Order: sequence, then C-alpha cells, then structure tokens
Amino acid sequence: MREIADRADVALRPHVKTHKSPEIARLQHGGASGPITVSTLAEAEAFAQEGFSDITYAVPIEPGKFVRALDLARRVRLHLLTDDTAAAGALSRAASEAGVRIPIFLEVDCGDHRCGVDPGAPQAIALARQIAESPSLIFAGLLTHGGHSYAATTLEAVRRVARQERDATVEFADRLRAAGIAVPVISIGSTPTMTQAEDLSGITEIRPGNYVFFDSFQAVHGSCTFEDCALTVLAAVVHNDGKRVVVDAGAIALSKDLGPRDLDPDSGHGHVLDLEARDTGWRIGNLSQEHGEIDLPSGADAARFPVGSRLRILVNHACLTAAQHERYHVIEDGRVIAEWPISRGW
Amino acid sequence: MREIADRADVALRPHVKTHKSPEIARLQHGGASGPITVSTLAEAEAFAQEGFSDITYAVPIEPGKFVRALDLARRVRLHLLTDDTAAAGALSRAASEAGVRIPIFLEVDCGDHRCGVDPGAPQAIALARQIAESPSLIFAGLLTHGGHSYAATTLEAVRRVARQERDATVEFADRLRAAGIAVPVISIGSTPTMTQAEDLSGITEIRPGNYVFFDSFQAVHGSCTFEDCALTVLAAVVHNDGKRVVVDAGAIALSKDLGPRDLDPDSGHGHVLDLEARDTGWRIGNLSQEHGEIDLPSGADAARFPVGSRLRILVNHACLTAAQHERYHVIEDGRVIAEWPISRGW
Repeated sequence: MREIADRADVALRPHVKTHKSPEIARLQHGGASGPITVSTLAEAEAFAQEGFSDITYAVPIEPGKFVRALDLARRVRLHLLTDDTAAAGALSRAASEAGVRIPIFLEVDCGDHRCGVDPGAPQAIALARQIAESPSLIFAGLLTHGGHSYAATTLEAVRRVARQERDATVEFADRLRAAGIAVPVISIGSTPTMTQAEDLSGITEIRPGNYVFFDSFQAVHGSCTFEDCALTVLAAVVHNDGKRVVVDAGAIALSKDLGPRDLDPDSGHGHVLDLEARDTGWRIGNLSQEHGEIDLPSGADAARFPVGSRLRILVNHACLTAAQHERYHVIEDGRVIAEWPISRGW
Repeated sequence: MREIADRADVALRPHVKTHKSPEIARLQHGGASGPITVSTLAEAEAFAQEGFSDITYAVPIEPGKFVRALDLARRVRLHLLTDDTAAAGALSRAASEAGVRIPIFLEVDCGDHRCGVDPGAPQAIALARQIAESPSLIFAGLLTHGGHSYAATTLEAVRRVARQERDATVEFADRLRAAGIAVPVISIGSTPTMTQAEDLSGITEIRPGNYVFFDSFQAVHGSCTFEDCALTVLAAVVHNDGKRVVVDAGAIALSKDLGPRDLDPDSGHGHVLDLEARDTGWRIGNLSQEHGEIDLPSGADAARFPVGSRLRILVNHACLTAAQHERYHVIEDGRVIAEWPISRGW
C-alpha cells in the first residue's frame, strides 16, 4: 500500500482499527509512528500514548465526546469529522471555551449512504464555510469512505466506487475553492478501492485499513489472494467422532461476520488450515459461543485431526476477528517471535 | 430460574459465559458463590479467583489444556467433559502423573449434533466404564445441552427438545446403572428448554445461561417478553440528516449475531430504545465496525434524536454482546449504581 501511495503521490494514513496495534502501525510506515486513522477515541488515546502524534478519528464527532477529544487535542494533532451543522457549531463553542483550535474534516457521502453530507446539496457548502470561518476550528478538508465497495461483486464495480470516492470529493473541492474556501486535504479510501483505483489525481491522502491482514472476504472479492492473508486464529480440535469435527474457536474467537457469502455461498465462517497454513478444504459451519463446527466435505479424512490437534482458521473479516482478542502471536518461520497487545474498547 | 430449579428439585449451575461476571453469578445464587458452568478455562480461573469453588468447564477437554485444568483442579472442584476415548485416556494418565483425581462428565448428544457421544452406541457405555474404572478420574455422570432448541420456532418444538435432553440422559443413565456404573449427576439445559420443560424427573442439575439477561432472540422465541430483557448497549447518534440516523454502536459493540431472523425477518441487529427503555420501533440495520445504521420506518420522526442523543440498543444475542465489552454499568431507577468487570479471553 505504501507503493500504491508513493506512485500516486498521496499520503498514506492507514486505518488502524483493523489491528489496534502500535507495532503493526509502525510496520505500515516503515518503522515510523506516522499518520493514522482510528475508529474510537480509545484507539486515539492508546496510540497517542505510544507516540503517534497525527491521528484522524474517522467517526463523526458528537457532543458527548468533546471533553475527551479536546483533551487529547492538546497533546497530539487530532483531526475530527463532522457532517452536522449543530454538532459543528457546538464543537466550535466547546473548543473556544477550552482554548483549543482543532482541525476537522467535512465528511462527504460519495454513495455509501452511511454518514457524510450530500456534496451536491447547498448546505454542504454552507457547512464547509461555517467550519472555515470558526475561529476555533481548522477546516482540514474533505473526507469520504467508499464503503459500498464491500457490496461490489466485480473488480469493475469496485473501480466504479473508487472513481466515486475521487470524483465526489475532488469536484466538491473545486466548487469550494471557487467559493473561496481552501481545501488542504482530500482523504479517501477503503482496501478494495485503493487496491483497484486507476486515478487518484487531486487526492492527497488515502486511508485503507484491512490490507494489512487481508482476509477471506478480500481474497474472494479480488483485493488479494488467499496466500496474502496474514491473520489466522489458532484452534484446537475438541470433538472428532469421524463424522463431525468441532474446534474451540466459536463466535467470540472468530466473530459472526458472514464474509464473502455473496460470491462464495459455501465460504462458511472461515477456512480451516493446518499448522503450516495449507488449506484443508474444510470450512467452519455453525458457530456457537465457544464451539466452531467444521463442515466436512464428503469423503474427508476426519481422522487426520484427532482431538487435541491444532488448526488455523483463516477468517472472514480480519478487523472484527482481531478485535475479539487481546494480543497477536507473531509467527516467523513457524515460531512465535513476539506477542503484541491489541488496544480494544471505546 | 431458581424457582424452576427448586420446584423440580434439581440443582442450578448457571452458565456464566453469558455474563462472565462474578457479581452476577452471585445474584443468580441469592448471594452465594454457588456452582457454575463456564465456557473457557480463563473464565474458570477468574471465577476461582473470586471464590467460586465448584465449576464445570462445559467444552470437551483436549490435551493442550491439561496442564492448566489440572493446576486449577488442585484449588477448586473442577468438572471436565469428554466424549473421546483417546482424550479420556490421556487425561487419566496426566491426572495420575499430576497426583490429582478429577471429576469428568461424559457428554451426550441428545440431538444437537455438536459434541457428545451417541447414547445409543455401544462405545458410549464403554467410555463411561473406562472413566469409572480410571483411578485418577471420577465419573461425574452425564451432561447434555439441547442447543438445537435455538433452531426451534414453536414452544412445542422447544418442549420436544427439553424432552430429548431429559430422555436421552435419563434413559442412558438407566442403562449405565444396569451395567453397574453409578451415575451421580445428570446435567442438562439451555434457557429455551429450561423455561419450557414439563418433566425433569431423573435430572439432578440444570445449566441455563442466557436467562440472566434474556435478549431479542429469546423474546421472539417465547422464553420471555421484551420487557424482561436486561442488557442494552448505550449508543450515541453520530449522524442524522433527517432521512438517515447512525449510531456509534457497530459490529464490535453489538456483535453480528442475526438474532431471531427466522421468526422476525425485520428484527435487524437490535431494537432501538430511548433512554427510558421504551421501544422506538426503530431497528438497527447495516452494521460496520463502529457504525450502526438505523432502519427508519416510513414516517418516522428522525428529528427526535439529533446528533449527540443517547439511545439504548436491545440486542439480538446478549451472550455475544456482553463478551464485546469490558464492564457493565448497572442501572437502578435510571442511575448507574455500580460498574462490574467482565472476565474475557481464553
């Protein structure tokens, strides 16, 4: 992803919600505690504590989080997001009272229809102006997330979403600049769109997250191969009667994300790999809290893995699975070379 | 549930995987640190630390967990489970070497087809005998879980599963006793079956878990009413443009359990309640990692809850949601009267 960013001459601000690990964020920046995106204030605080000083909290800010955000903004460069006139006004007053000037992005809806302003609506320009004119806010620029790339079932459809991310923000920035409002940063990105984007002209920053691990969803959807996937859950066989095999990784250890079921109805809740990460062809079927039931293909040799065997589960959605655990075991050449904590919570 | 157990003259050994909270386990026993069921050795260790001395670890034991289990068995009465001849033999040897005698249940498959021996198979009697004759194992009895009650869509179907739980174990116990093997405990139960069971004769112990909170699944399936549900997730509105409302509780805060979708296709990922726990009629639709998108009914007054409003999400599956959080905020008369930690991990 650093090569993609370098080639396009854009900054890389990886979304660390995928891993919640300062060690991994530094790997993403070649060792530096570079710019990051976070999904919770708890992540922002934990990474600030670890020396990360340039952080974007990529969920729209709401008044109940002002105190924590403004407190953190005294210690690091914390960028916030808004798409709401009243919330932006309240933040402006709160920042003024706190004696803090805080950079804030206007979140733009490029077609995902989750958060963000409609960039074609007159109120969008008015909100950008309101931010730019607030003495306690700094208009950081425009930010969008083409989350609908996750619903795209062809690479051409993903590339269309990538064009929407770029076009919606760059064209809106042009209108803002024509209206006299400076737009320093244009920030876009998701892992599917950033692995497929053909044109990042006008963009200054990208924020993919999942690429650091990839997962079954991304492999089936063409962002990577299965061999690229880095995150597996170590599980033990707890039941094997020759017809049914059950492991001790269930809904909590794996998450109940349905993964790439749109393109691969048989993907189940994860691919079952052996300890050398070779695909057995088996899939995790039903999940209960601490049990994962393996769907055995007909003719499978269940006796390969008696009770006590260790298996690795290649997961559907790495971000959600990682957030279920308190640490990574880092494997090199089949040996655990490090344990890295995961900063969870809110 | 204590009344149900008292009326049937059976012991209550609640499954604390639902809450992972010693405080709540003591509430379930009227203040005592009574017998409990756990789903991980980490839970067993955490509850032992809190003074619980009679614990059943209700996932079949496998050799990779022998050291921890035998260590804990020196400090508390720890019951294990097996359905595997080789694992039982290995445990017998390991316990003997450790100088520990350990009680172990034979897990029986009463129709759930997850773990457990087929009680009609000759090997099942042979395994019971193998355990009973091991000098380092104590044959605790039979244990089953009618987890297929969660697939039942009528109360009559749930009652059928309750009968299967009872009949499969009691009839098997009769055969074991006829073969000269004493069966001290017969342990069954799930929340659906224990709220509906009509006959617990021959049963000595029940292990329901979810009833302590209940949830949307249990309410739709008839184990309780929505008013009985005790667990909600506090969420803040982060986006409201009059047509779309988004809260800061997403897949991690709520879990992606599909809940009672079999009986209520519109149940979404949770019911949206106001702070006084009144149902707004709104449902959580799409979930991303930290965003929950609300499905607004047509004509809904979105302006009721502007950005910054607090809402409570009544969840689909309380056990999975609770395991996403590090503590409970205990509410009485609208005020937080305590915070109770949640013991997570493995």
